[in-house]
Amino acid sequence: MLTASSDLRSYLTGFTSTFGFVYTDAQETVFFTDPRYAEGAKAALKDKFIKVEIAQTEECVLDYIKSKKVKKLAVPMERVTVPQYEKLQSRRFRLVDSMPHFIRAMAIKSEQESALIGKACEIAESAFLRLLGELKEGMTENETAGLLEYLMRQAGAENRSFETIAAFGSGSSVPHHASGQTRLKKGMPVLLDFGCKYGGYCSDITRTFLFGKGDGQEDFIKTYESVYAAHMTAAEYIHAGITGRQADAYARNSLKENGLDKFFTHSLGHGIGINIHEYPTLSMRSEQILENGMVFSIEPGVYFENKFGIRIEDSVQLIDGDVVSFMKTDKKLVVL
Amino acid sequence: MLTASSDLRSYLTGFTSTFGFVYTDAQETVFFTDPRYAEGAKAALKDKFIKVEIAQTEECVLDYIKSKKVKKLAVPMERVTVPQYEKLQSRRFRLVDSMPHFIRAMAIKSEQESALIGKACEIAESAFLRLLGELKEGMTENETAGLLEYLMRQAGAENRSFETIAAFGSGSSVPHHASGQTRLKKGMPVLLDFGCKYGGYCSDITRTFLFGKGDGQEDFIKTYESVYAAHMTAAEYIHAGITGRQADAYARNSLKENGLDKFFTHSLGHGIGINIHEYPTLSMRSEQILENGMVFSIEPGVYFENKFGIRIEDSVQLIDGDVVSFMKTDKKLVVL
Repeated sequence: MLTASSDLRSYLTGFTSTFGFVYTDAQETVFFTDPRYAEGAKAALKDKFIKVEIAQTEECVLDYIKSKKVKKLAVPMERVTVPQYEKLQSRRFRLVDSMPHFIRAMAIKSEQESALIGKACEIAESAFLRLLGELKEGMTENETAGLLEYLMRQAGAENRSFETIAAFGSGSSVPHHASGQTRLKKGMPVLLDFGCKYGGYCSDITRTFLFGKGDGQEDFIKTYESVYAAHMTAAEYIHAGITGRQADAYARNSLKENGLDKFFTHSLGHGIGINIHEYPTLSMRSEQILENGMVFSIEPGVYFENKFGIRIEDSVQLIDGDVVSFMKTDKKLVVL
Repeated sequence: MLTASSDLRSYLTGFTSTFGFVYTDAQETVFFTDPRYAEGAKAALKDKFIKVEIAQTEECVLDYIKSKKVKKLAVPMERVTVPQYEKLQSRRFRLVDSMPHFIRAMAIKSEQESALIGKACEIAESAFLRLLGELKEGMTENETAGLLEYLMRQAGAENRSFETIAAFGSGSSVPHHASGQTRLKKGMPVLLDFGCKYGGYCSDITRTFLFGKGDGQEDFIKTYESVYAAHMTAAEYIHAGITGRQADAYARNSLKENGLDKFFTHSLGHGIGINIHEYPTLSMRSEQILENGMVFSIEPGVYFENKFGIRIEDSVQLIDGDVVSFMKTDKKLVVL
């Protein structure tokens, strides 16, 4: 089995790098990397029975595998590009797809993996609580995103798990808003979608709140109640054995009761692990079965163009059939 | 022409998103994206004659193209995965590779692109100077990386251009060190490799300095002089028309004069643009020709296992045949 994908390498070895290959067969596991990572990899992998070899190019790795008379080689097809595929074919390997096995194995989290995700969630939440005390009128979305990432680092995060979204006012009506130069004003809705990495694993959380009282907030407050209800309904009813579509429907039907389902323009959630988006998908079209041990997001949201958006997201795990949130903070509306 | 790659989409449209497709033919350019980005894309692209359409899947996009009776379709082969390729083939398109055209076009920067890179460099440098005043004994590498990223945001960056590397003491001897929990102590070497994004374009800079005077720094100081000389030699002699190999040799030979070339374990530089690593490559094996308008890094470095590492990097451009650095700060050794 051979892979060049950084997340799959990280899953197999526990070591993070931007360049490298992992080869595994019945006899050995070899991590091939360039000299930039060699020292770090040797130190990190010395207790894991993983050999570290220097390889500047894929050719060197393929030479190594060929020298072992390997005929059948498993590669993650959806990560293999056309030129890479042609290179593998020219070496006359019989190629099979390893990706379904990775997806399956990575979806069910071990206790160790869950603990790392839990710690990543704890750090993200504690940084969020500290941020609430630091927010000031006039700060830009960009600064706020940067400060939240800094606070996560201070709390022990090794990195953010994705680019932090900070959206003020009507910016919150764009579900994947690019944090910009909009400045915080009293009474504005604030939407923060963020997370960090700890031990290579991600957290993912969204909170929407009001930066002080202001005029015309009745509609926001009423809508918040509905999104909150949709979140809590989904968390209560989702259980092991149902499909991603059924999970999504709990939140969507809850919003429908308040006439808001047509403003819920994305899916309910996605798997979380080494990658911020992985298996399974909780959406209107997903027939994937939710199983014990899976970690995913629950994130209903509604968006009103040029007005505001509200999304409430937790990272959760299915344990003994039911949803257990990694988050400890209350999700009721906060007015700062 | 069709692409799903975020950097190529960004190059074609100037709009950044994590999901979407851009299709171009003689008549029109269409940006397909999901509802999360639709509002933002419409606002950003309304003056650019780029249509925005909703498409949740690649199938919808291919249906659209098929409906136009398109037979020959250019796709960036090195970004196309095996399952995607099979999907395109099943639609009976005659596929050609657009990637060489993208690489070529993206390598030579327009004045507008250079100005954005210049601004990204200016922001990175100003944040670095502010960081120097904020460094304190006991800070972790992680905190320092987070603080530098926050200061870049405060100075107007829209994002970091890659994961900031902060390495203290012997951590600096790992060229791609993962910033960790090592704490800053007086007399330590500090290596910071960082950059930001502005208007979608990247800056890339590395500075190595001493956090105060200490014992046994003579070796570091002497070595710094050699790396500095290698950097300045490369910047002086590199010119339009030579190969990446020849460019690399200027720095490597300079280090060789001081017996340090065997510790220079990576290549001299790489192109910089929308991506932090793009064409051309300045390395021992690169036959790519350096041309006016290209932007790349010059980053000689030497690494001594378990002792220290030194790297000095500027982002530069070839203008009228010669290297012009985007950086304004002095690169002589700083002892804080």
